[in-house]
Amino acid sequence: MLTWNIISKPRLKRPIVVEGLPGIGNVGKVAAEYLIEKLKAKKFAELYSDHYPYHVFVNDDDTVDLPKNEFYYHKGRKRDVIIITGDIQSMTPHGHYEIVEGMLSLVRKLGARTVFTLGGFGVNPLPKVPKVVGAVTDAKLKKKYRKYGIKFESGERVGIIIGASGLLLGVGKLRGMKGMCLMGETLNRQMFTDTKSAKQVLIVLSKLLGISVDMKSLEERSKEMEKAIRKAQEIEAKLLEKARKGEDLRYIG
Amino acid sequence: MLTWNIISKPRLKRPIVVEGLPGIGNVGKVAAEYLIEKLKAKKFAELYSDHYPYHVFVNDDDTVDLPKNEFYYHKGRKRDVIIITGDIQSMTPHGHYEIVEGMLSLVRKLGARTVFTLGGFGVNPLPKVPKVVGAVTDAKLKKKYRKYGIKFESGERVGIIIGASGLLLGVGKLRGMKGMCLMGETLNRQMFTDTKSAKQVLIVLSKLLGISVDMKSLEERSKEMEKAIRKAQEIEAKLLEKARKGEDLRYIG
Amino acid sequence: MLTWNIISKPRLKRPIVVEGLPGIGNVGKVAAEYLIEKLKAKKFAELYSDHYPYHVFVNDDDTVDLPKNEFYYHKGRKRDVIIITGDIQSMTPHGHYEIVEGMLSLVRKLGARTVFTLGGFGVNPLPKVPKVVGAVTDAKLKKKYRKYGIKFESGERVGIIIGASGLLLGVGKLRGMKGMCLMGETLNRQMFTDTKSAKQVLIVLSKLLGISVDMKSLEERSKEMEKAIRKAQEIEAKLLEKARKGEDLRYIG
Amino acid sequence: MLTWNIISKPRLKRPIVVEGLPGIGNVGKVAAEYLIEKLKAKKFAELYSDHYPYHVFVNDDDTVDLPKNEFYYHKGRKRDVIIITGDIQSMTPHGHYEIVEGMLSLVRKLGARTVFTLGGFGVNPLPKVPKVVGAVTDAKLKKKYRKYGIKFESGERVGIIIGASGLLLGVGKLRGMKGMCLMGETLNRQMFTDTKSAKQVLIVLSKLLGISVDMKSLEERSKEMEKAIRKAQEIEAKLLEKARKGEDLRYIG
Repeated sequence: MLTWNIISKPRLKRPIVVEGLPGIGNVGKVAAEYLIEKLKAKKFAELYSDHYPYHVFVNDDDTVDLPKNEFYYHKGRKRDVIIITGDIQSMTPHGHYEIVEGMLSLVRKLGARTVFTLGGFGVNPLPKVPKVVGAVTDAKLKKKYRKYGIKFESGERVGIIIGASGLLLGVGKLRGMKGMCLMGETLNRQMFTDTKSAKQVLIVLSKLLGISVDMKSLEERSKEMEKAIRKAQEIEAKLLEKARKGEDLRYIG
Repeated sequence: MLTWNIISKPRLKRPIVVEGLPGIGNVGKVAAEYLIEKLKAKKFAELYSDHYPYHVFVNDDDTVDLPKNEFYYHKGRKRDVIIITGDIQSMTPHGHYEIVEGMLSLVRKLGARTVFTLGGFGVNPLPKVPKVVGAVTDAKLKKKYRKYGIKFESGERVGIIIGASGLLLGVGKLRGMKGMCLMGETLNRQMFTDTKSAKQVLIVLSKLLGISVDMKSLEERSKEMEKAIRKAQEIEAKLLEKARKGEDLRYIG
Repeated sequence: MLTWNIISKPRLKRPIVVEGLPGIGNVGKVAAEYLIEKLKAKKFAELYSDHYPYHVFVNDDDTVDLPKNEFYYHKGRKRDVIIITGDIQSMTPHGHYEIVEGMLSLVRKLGARTVFTLGGFGVNPLPKVPKVVGAVTDAKLKKKYRKYGIKFESGERVGIIIGASGLLLGVGKLRGMKGMCLMGETLNRQMFTDTKSAKQVLIVLSKLLGISVDMKSLEERSKEMEKAIRKAQEIEAKLLEKARKGEDLRYIG
Repeated sequence: MLTWNIISKPRLKRPIVVEGLPGIGNVGKVAAEYLIEKLKAKKFAELYSDHYPYHVFVNDDDTVDLPKNEFYYHKGRKRDVIIITGDIQSMTPHGHYEIVEGMLSLVRKLGARTVFTLGGFGVNPLPKVPKVVGAVTDAKLKKKYRKYGIKFESGERVGIIIGASGLLLGVGKLRGMKGMCLMGETLNRQMFTDTKSAKQVLIVLSKLLGISVDMKSLEERSKEMEKAIRKAQEIEAKLLEKARKGEDLRYIG
């Protein structure tokens, strides 16, 4: 079940969708959130679902909020951008499909036909400058996008792409969308925020979108981001640990 | 799926909802049940669901009952109170959302716009007098409620609030409700009933509700409560143990 | 989802429902199946469901059959009897509720208002003659049924009754039915068929139903039953073992 | 939920359905895919479902595709053939039933009343020439099919048949279909592709269908098939391992 909170109905010109949700190294989420901030993108919708975890987050100011996904837009010179981010992904297998169908339905109504999904790609050891590896809905797109510095090595190196970053392309293809997943190399089993990898993904993405994004503050502010995300990940780890031990999951101190 | 047994349809004046269901130290459940007893609150509804465990409880008199949640009301001088308690919480992730939506729909029809959820909050070591930590739907409520002895430290100390105590606030907020979760400090991984913590929560709650509750018998009667709840928890532990071992779950001796 | 195969629509006078499905020591299933055979009860319905396991059983003659529950009737002198048995119980938690609601709906249409559910109750050590322990929908029934040799000790000894044997009483109560669960003592963690316990349950049940059942062949034939049920249980054990190890579950040799 | 992509609506004469999906030794999948290739069968439908895994596969050319099942047809001299194959089976228990009901509905509309399902059957040690063991919807079919070299030993040797190969027969029987499961002996806990077993199954199947299939290239090409399937299986194994450890499942490198 999806519950939408529609804040406004923007009129957009040929918008491109960018998705960055939690995942390995939180590469996609960090890139998407930084983009929102630098572009001063406006939030126009929130998505709640019973496929998300059955808890509230407690914010720094002692208020609580349900887990949610958020939709922002930015008015570009030639084309507009829709950015999807959020706290979590679906907890249930079929929930991923329902949520992605809902997302696609919304962005299609706003005129979007192209989607770029952002994520991390686990490697070991980590190179000095992480590469950005691409996977596409249509082989012809490789020619078009190769000039932006994307390595098309996913066929050899990536087996599957899980969750929204994969399904937005796979289901989108069935719904007449085209797109690409940009995966920044990050350390295998990366638990914490990899802003370095997110930066590489953003460099490629900003070229793709034809916008300029000031990258200066991304590395500086990596530490506070890391702290916040580490907190969330420790909670998740505790929950999973408790779930495995069959313990009471009701409160986490 | 929810199955309601509506016993009566009380007319209530601006009722405040209080929820206390099983959780760490059973702080919320004990507080809610003691309040029901001391206020001689009347049961007006029962909620059954296929999200609850697929067993019956055997009572002391050899009769059986399905797991359920129960709804009571108390007529106050200025405002009335609705109290929600019960044996269990949802077994399925999305069941939590369906049950909370159902609860909110019922209490909203009765005029409720404020909800206080009660629970425990695991700490180690346990202080002599457990503190009561609060989390709110709206930061402005902190100013209003601070005078009742609530510590607004949940932003630093609590990551998430799981189950009905969290979702009644989170989903309630989306449905125009406001409220607070009162969490009594209790020992981490507390398996048994913590009446001491429940007492602290009740002291705060009775001030909030503007009612006086005789606390004398709460500690005296802690032992029999503890016995009953321990029995339930041992059964749950056996079930979980069996489930983990992949054993037959059909009968528990 | 339930799929009914209705073979015939018997006209029954005040029928009593007897349920015996797989469980500890298969006490209920053995008792129900023996009763069907001795009474030459007629099958009138089969129930299939996607809550049952997603496999077929291979029979001795190399044919395959879906898991199912079966419904038989017997025309008694004063009252008729409906007997419910089958290969399996629901695999999913909420499936138990859906199946029990479906069963109750069917038997209620046929005029049934009383249900006796049969099962095992794990003890250690096992007494020479297993006792039959009862749990009821209404405390008044204890007085009525005590004379048939039922021990009403379930309030002290049994925490919960899981699956159809519990839910048929618990949900049935909500739907205006009354009834009792008869639990034969059997060895704790009993993996194999306990015909001795099933015999004790049948002795009590036949008195309750006012019918005479020839018990002679029950123990004699215990060995072949045991073999068949052991086969099924070994398969289940393998499946569970494989599931725990995360192995491929598609074929079992 | 099922999503069909109907490519064409072939007119078929009394088509026989052949199903081969992933399973032990991938015997069924290899046999079905080889048959499609040798018969130059035409794809006429694709099935997508939220019961399939929530990821996309990355192909060798860096494009992505949702997991799916595929439907092919071949025009035979006397009778036509429908072949069902695909990447995966349902991830959820009840999904197996929904998918099989959908498959049966499609092939029944095309006139099919007979289904042959293909799979592996784990043994240890593996004989030099794997036997093909059969299980049928109706005991009379054994007489008809024994001449094709099928061993009807499944009653003694096979407990259950899991997934589409079992349910297409079990559910099919309820819907008026008849059929047989052909299981090639393969090594117990076989992780890799067993083309030798698939060949034996194909020899039997081609006789059953009255067609001739050139087997030469099957063993030659076993190595590249094995490589591709090993890749898929390693990914699955990683996913299961991660799931068991409660790790982040979002990206697999």
